[in-house]
Amino acid sequence: MLLSSDANSPYTLLLPLALILVLSKLLSLVARKIGLPQVVGLLLTGIVLGLIKMIDNQSIFTPFTMEGISFIAEIGVILIMFSAGLETDIKQIKKTGKEAIIITLFGIIFPMLLGFLVAFVLPGGLSKETMFRNLFYGVILTATSVSVTIATLKELGKLNSKIGTAIVSAAILDDILGVIILSVIISLEGAIVDGNGGNVGADIALVIGKTVLFFVLAFVIGLLLRKLFKMLSNKYDHHRRIPIFAVAVAFFYAYAAEKWFGIADITGAFFAGLILSGDKDTEYIEKKTDVTSYLLFTPVFFAKVGLTSLESFKDIDVSFILFGVLFVLAGMAGKLFGCGAAAKICKYSFKDSLRCGIGMMCRAEVCLICADKGIDAGIISESIQPFILALILITSFVTPVILKNSYRGEIGHDIEDIIAYINPEKARQDKLKAQ
Amino acid sequence: MLLSSDANSPYTLLLPLALILVLSKLLSLVARKIGLPQVVGLLLTGIVLGLIKMIDNQSIFTPFTMEGISFIAEIGVILIMFSAGLETDIKQIKKTGKEAIIITLFGIIFPMLLGFLVAFVLPGGLSKETMFRNLFYGVILTATSVSVTIATLKELGKLNSKIGTAIVSAAILDDILGVIILSVIISLEGAIVDGNGGNVGADIALVIGKTVLFFVLAFVIGLLLRKLFKMLSNKYDHHRRIPIFAVAVAFFYAYAAEKWFGIADITGAFFAGLILSGDKDTEYIEKKTDVTSYLLFTPVFFAKVGLTSLESFKDIDVSFILFGVLFVLAGMAGKLFGCGAAAKICKYSFKDSLRCGIGMMCRAEVCLICADKGIDAGIISESIQPFILALILITSFVTPVILKNSYRGEIGHDIEDIIAYINPEKARQDKLKAQ
Repeated sequence: MLLSSDANSPYTLLLPLALILVLSKLLSLVARKIGLPQVVGLLLTGIVLGLIKMIDNQSIFTPFTMEGISFIAEIGVILIMFSAGLETDIKQIKKTGKEAIIITLFGIIFPMLLGFLVAFVLPGGLSKETMFRNLFYGVILTATSVSVTIATLKELGKLNSKIGTAIVSAAILDDILGVIILSVIISLEGAIVDGNGGNVGADIALVIGKTVLFFVLAFVIGLLLRKLFKMLSNKYDHHRRIPIFAVAVAFFYAYAAEKWFGIADITGAFFAGLILSGDKDTEYIEKKTDVTSYLLFTPVFFAKVGLTSLESFKDIDVSFILFGVLFVLAGMAGKLFGCGAAAKICKYSFKDSLRCGIGMMCRAEVCLICADKGIDAGIISESIQPFILALILITSFVTPVILKNSYRGEIGHDIEDIIAYINPEKARQDKLKAQ
Repeated sequence: MLLSSDANSPYTLLLPLALILVLSKLLSLVARKIGLPQVVGLLLTGIVLGLIKMIDNQSIFTPFTMEGISFIAEIGVILIMFSAGLETDIKQIKKTGKEAIIITLFGIIFPMLLGFLVAFVLPGGLSKETMFRNLFYGVILTATSVSVTIATLKELGKLNSKIGTAIVSAAILDDILGVIILSVIISLEGAIVDGNGGNVGADIALVIGKTVLFFVLAFVIGLLLRKLFKMLSNKYDHHRRIPIFAVAVAFFYAYAAEKWFGIADITGAFFAGLILSGDKDTEYIEKKTDVTSYLLFTPVFFAKVGLTSLESFKDIDVSFILFGVLFVLAGMAGKLFGCGAAAKICKYSFKDSLRCGIGMMCRAEVCLICADKGIDAGIISESIQPFILALILITSFVTPVILKNSYRGEIGHDIEDIIAYINPEKARQDKLKAQ
């Protein structure tokens, strides 16, 4: 037979890819219809595919195609983090300044602490291994993804309200801090736990040194690159060339971070985005890379998460399920009370403080990617993935409801009200039909 | 160390990718500067990378990263063929009708015949194996890529001249016929040479039956899909969703063709494109898929060709080099005389017939992809790749020169004249500088 008909020929990847694309688009269409963010649709796709994989018996999801999927998912992760960096508008933070910083700090410390404490439920006391494991479970809970919150506030016309801008700035800041903390913990863990058992102190010094060196180099080289891109964009206005060079920079930064500095590749990609953010061509670069990642890479990343997380669920023990549930609650409570309290300290009204807590509660791809990173690094168990999915699904659903409701000043007592909060249009249509 | 720092972690793919992107953009920039098509830049990138790989000693291009590259290159191939199908405008052919058909037929028969004859230089007489091998070398030479010709004619304002439209239509037709012939030969070879040695007659009948069945099904299901897409595009005007579904269809058609019908996956992708061509949303789909493939997939495909073809060049024997040179000449002569004669038969002037022959001489990615397919299928030697590269490079350089010159009615005697033919602007600037 044809060599290209072998089970291990690249063309076999095309069927899973087609499946992923069709499902994710259909399910994100459904999600949107009931007023939920696209990310929910993508997550559900992953779960559905995970179920298919269980009964599929390696006809579609062979070890070989799974490898192809993990290659594409990796590129997806890099593009997502790069675009997260591009979206980061430093100027925005200056607007709200001190308040945003306080909200961010509380919004990082509380979830980290809660996550850390909850992790004690897991077997293993405070050995140096579990210390990092517990810390990492905390770190996962720091990254906010306020796209859902922003969408809701936009819809309510409250995005540019005082609390609205505070939420957006805080979310930006805690992405940056979250990524830095993640990098430090990953590399420290690398030095202390997996270290060659030599002089640990020296290892730690080395790791911290490397981490600092990375950020310094990333910044200095970044300034030069930024100049180069300014030059390019003045030379050829809106040219295909620019996004391609930008993506190349993201890939290179990601590789360098992981390979030469022992820092997560996602940190490199995120900082590549930061470097090119808030510039004349930023929006153009973002548009082109987003087209590419939404056309293939992002759906494949979410699919990969679903495909791997459901398997890990099979051999999960009770104590972990208990932990998982507490972990999800910690993730929600941490932001709700942390950011809420911070807002109150910043003299916001109780209602606005509540809105801040609710708004910062949302998680999405960044949280998922951080967890993925910890699993790859062997720091945390892959069994956590289903709970991360749950955290994202719950917050994506709950935040818009409560947020909209907080602006209506009333609680929905039945499903119609909830629908009304999520999707006013639909509710209105239903009412009309009813009459 | 971190699990994700292993040599076989997907992140290691990021460095080769960054390298590919930067090099291909720089070199296609250079190519454009001297008036050559982008494809030349992409090919040169492949060659440069091939040389880097030789001295690289598997630090960048490890077996693992090469596997990742081949996954992405496969997607690139599918997207290129899909987009080739999308660009195929059946209406265009009706315009020129009979003439285009004659030019196409001559333009297919001559190169196929010459390629077939030249292949006798290779060891092995007319055994059933070599018969298919020789035939396939002929088939590779059938596919034209007139993008260079079109660009040149546009520049000369002759694209809508009688011969211009004839060339474009003929090029479209011979893509379709070329792909069909390729499919038939690949599947016949599969049945006869690699067959289980059973009843060959029955095998052939089965293969032909399957091939016909594929085209019938592809067409019928295609009509339904076309209706579905019309519906979608009326419902959500210019929505992201549509290109994604389109790409999914391309992936699925490609997979089905290869897996269930023993036909090349590229045939499936090309027909998926045909189905969605000439429709309201075709242009939009093409735009989005092109952004994606130019941002990553197409450069990676060309890089892969270069990376693999140079290695094959190391252990190449003299008889093959002789064949390779003859093969390149056959490729050029076949189209030049075939299409030229056909045009003359269609009562075109000698000069227009010459232009037709020259214009149809161009080869690019489709030719490369066909060869790649034959190599994957184990029908032809991978040592042919460098000569395919040569054929593409030579025609991409020669065609514009002669074509422009034929419209100037004079031969360039020195480099300045040639530059003047290729890039009038540059020549003008040079003159100004000289004064």
